[in-house]
Amino acid sequence: MVERKPIHKYDLIVLGSGPAGEKGAAQAAYFGKKVAIVERDYYLGGSAASTAIPSKTLRETSLALSGIRARRLHGVDLALKRRATVQDFLHHERKVKDAERNRVMNNILHHNIAIFKGKGSFVDERTIKIEARGKAPELLKGDIILIATGSFPRRPDNFPKDPRIYDSNSILRIKIMPKNMVVAGGGIIGCEYACTFAALGVDVSLVHNKDILLPFLDRDISFALENSMLKMGINLLMPESVESCNVKANRMEIRLGSGEVRRTEAVMLATGRTSNTGELNLEAAGITPGKYGLLVVDQNYQAIHPKTRKPVQGIYAAGDVIGAPALASTSMEQARFAMIKAFNLEPYKKHVAPILPLGIYTIPECSLAGKTEQELREEKIDYVVGKAAYNKNARGMIIGERDGFLKLIFEFNKDLSRPMKLLGIHVIGENASELIHIGVSALIMGASSNLFIDTCFNYPTLGELYKYATYDAMGNRAKHLQSE
Amino acid sequence: MVERKPIHKYDLIVLGSGPAGEKGAAQAAYFGKKVAIVERDYYLGGSAASTAIPSKTLRETSLALSGIRARRLHGVDLALKRRATVQDFLHHERKVKDAERNRVMNNILHHNIAIFKGKGSFVDERTIKIEARGKAPELLKGDIILIATGSFPRRPDNFPKDPRIYDSNSILRIKIMPKNMVVAGGGIIGCEYACTFAALGVDVSLVHNKDILLPFLDRDISFALENSMLKMGINLLMPESVESCNVKANRMEIRLGSGEVRRTEAVMLATGRTSNTGELNLEAAGITPGKYGLLVVDQNYQAIHPKTRKPVQGIYAAGDVIGAPALASTSMEQARFAMIKAFNLEPYKKHVAPILPLGIYTIPECSLAGKTEQELREEKIDYVVGKAAYNKNARGMIIGERDGFLKLIFEFNKDLSRPMKLLGIHVIGENASELIHIGVSALIMGASSNLFIDTCFNYPTLGELYKYATYDAMGNRAKHLQSE
Repeated sequence: MVERKPIHKYDLIVLGSGPAGEKGAAQAAYFGKKVAIVERDYYLGGSAASTAIPSKTLRETSLALSGIRARRLHGVDLALKRRATVQDFLHHERKVKDAERNRVMNNILHHNIAIFKGKGSFVDERTIKIEARGKAPELLKGDIILIATGSFPRRPDNFPKDPRIYDSNSILRIKIMPKNMVVAGGGIIGCEYACTFAALGVDVSLVHNKDILLPFLDRDISFALENSMLKMGINLLMPESVESCNVKANRMEIRLGSGEVRRTEAVMLATGRTSNTGELNLEAAGITPGKYGLLVVDQNYQAIHPKTRKPVQGIYAAGDVIGAPALASTSMEQARFAMIKAFNLEPYKKHVAPILPLGIYTIPECSLAGKTEQELREEKIDYVVGKAAYNKNARGMIIGERDGFLKLIFEFNKDLSRPMKLLGIHVIGENASELIHIGVSALIMGASSNLFIDTCFNYPTLGELYKYATYDAMGNRAKHLQSE
Repeated sequence: MVERKPIHKYDLIVLGSGPAGEKGAAQAAYFGKKVAIVERDYYLGGSAASTAIPSKTLRETSLALSGIRARRLHGVDLALKRRATVQDFLHHERKVKDAERNRVMNNILHHNIAIFKGKGSFVDERTIKIEARGKAPELLKGDIILIATGSFPRRPDNFPKDPRIYDSNSILRIKIMPKNMVVAGGGIIGCEYACTFAALGVDVSLVHNKDILLPFLDRDISFALENSMLKMGINLLMPESVESCNVKANRMEIRLGSGEVRRTEAVMLATGRTSNTGELNLEAAGITPGKYGLLVVDQNYQAIHPKTRKPVQGIYAAGDVIGAPALASTSMEQARFAMIKAFNLEPYKKHVAPILPLGIYTIPECSLAGKTEQELREEKIDYVVGKAAYNKNARGMIIGERDGFLKLIFEFNKDLSRPMKLLGIHVIGENASELIHIGVSALIMGASSNLFIDTCFNYPTLGELYKYATYDAMGNRAKHLQSE
């Protein structure tokens, strides 16, 4: 007698329960689809819950415990950092992580989504096998499959295995606060951690292979961030590279491309991420991942054959697994949009969020939406810039933020009686990632300079910066016209 | 020989250099008008710089020094309050106040506005006499006069004069932190100070003559604020009134309307304000102020005769001097708009900011823009509510804000395929006065629920609350339709 395996049938099978997986699954379930979510980890929530949220929590805690904020406010040093143990430091992080994991679990259960714990892999284009230790494999069949398995930190070959060499996963389990640290990689994760540890009093060196930090930011913001990091005492080694890392008993020796050797107690690798696609048996679905395991998708987030460029019907991918921008915020949007397309839910959501802001949790925060000056120059679009500084804003003075500013870019328009179209918003300073949203809504609605002139902002708030940056841009337009 | 007094001529004379005066003067000067500003105080900036900003700074400092934020984050009590002297507490406040006064001065000088220090009063409808100690009076003639002289705290008769009985001016010069305090008056100022002093460990009792706090807020927010204040240990005595205040050597005895007697070390009066119009010799301009010295204005902020209801050509008034809402934010808008009207600068600004948000700096902050539920019920407009809680939001969890929420109100719309128009935004929680601005722009542009669905919010941010409150409203609409 041949035993037949039961096959569970679903409208949608989602691989991974991070931001893309959770929101994609919830979106489909909200519209009555039968959904299963497969998670190989013990916890739900993916790396947003396990590393992104904790890293932001750590940042917040470092600001509070290190006394940076209090010092700005009172000239009083409230710093606990000499006394704070790493455990104090991580106390709140664990609470927040647990809460976020619970939130994801509750959301999934609330939407009546079936949860399968185990390693999922393709049997064919519509069938997923789930393997979990101590259990017989299970088979799921889905009309639609959403791959949202995320990515993991890539460790370059020139670093040996050593417990003092951390990546963005293991850094959150750090036991002893080191005196000094070399951060390898000046991308978003590298810059964020460099700031957090510098705030905690660690002597941080950041090795970055370009001559500018985060070059996708508007130059003004990149330079301002560089200045702030230097002021915090971070050693910015750029452009620079790591040749080798030599592990000794009581220290590590980092040989740099320039020949210089740095001794350090700890290394943090922020050298890119690789997609979690190696164990998915993608060949069975006719998909071959690209470099670093990246999946290639079309404008609807449907997977495509990298060679034939043809879509693989019914298989979608979203989030870190498809690469940049690889942010929780964008991952959620991608997954929601993919499910709208997959299930023809058009009336609900016609297009993917047209503006994708970037929020970077350095100290201070940076954020961007729309065009940068360098992009507009390349596109040969005439523009006018307006700026407003935190230290001339009442709320900025109250919170003691000295170097932050908001920069607005408008389309240049000779007719002084006509408003100017908003093209880009750039912020550096406390709460930048929140402050940007006023501009994001404005961009989405195609707003002009009139919007911020017509807006009454609460006083004292940072929101007022929008009005004063707009005034500044109007003044700059007038000056520009006079000089013509 | 008769000595002829020189008369200085201006396009605009502004009385008062607070937010209304500064912005009105700057607006006119920006368009090339010759402007004079008259200030009777030693410092520029009015009560926004001398009391509003300092009170918000005090609030920020109390949050930092009292350790409320740190305790939420780490369960560690960083509180300095047992050790902090009042002077520590006020250190930052003075710095910020000075910076704001300098900012106003620089802005006025930057716009080439003449400053006259002294008491200004009307000689006739176009002439202002300036009297300063030790100087001969000067006369100014203006085509337009803007009265922006603000208001001062009103002291009711049932309170004697005593240094331990503070108002919102003198409280900022407090020398000794009292063990307990009775705050008389449950308006915005009363609620704000009650929270700040409670955060500093003072045992605060708030006497309020209504049975609901800040009844112009949406009920949900009023109740949530009441809960938060009770949790902080504030004794809310409402509805309640003060019969008498009996001053003893080592304490004061407050007899309440209910007959109860409260003993207290300090009293803070937050019992309304009176307009600074008594010394303006308004009769010479044909103007009679109303109750509490309030000036009456038309829709263009032109002063009107309270009896004939006819406008007094060329005389405008803005800010606290014309009464509610009496916020710095709205005062600035009023003055800018008045000057646009006075000088026919229409192409620049067609209408006063159509949406006036309220920002209330209690702990936690509250903010409102657009309609409340109670207003919509009165206007018989069908609506749907959506809410999102800070403690289910990643950023809310990180900052440890437990009770905050965003509430959106949309116009009810039976057609599920159509978006719903945004009508009102209500927030309680940290940064509420900033967070509201996303919704303010949306309201101004006539946005619908689609805007927040289409917006990609940075993660983790409080801004995301807009998306989840919108989802909640959409779910509530669907439920409502099912139950019909």
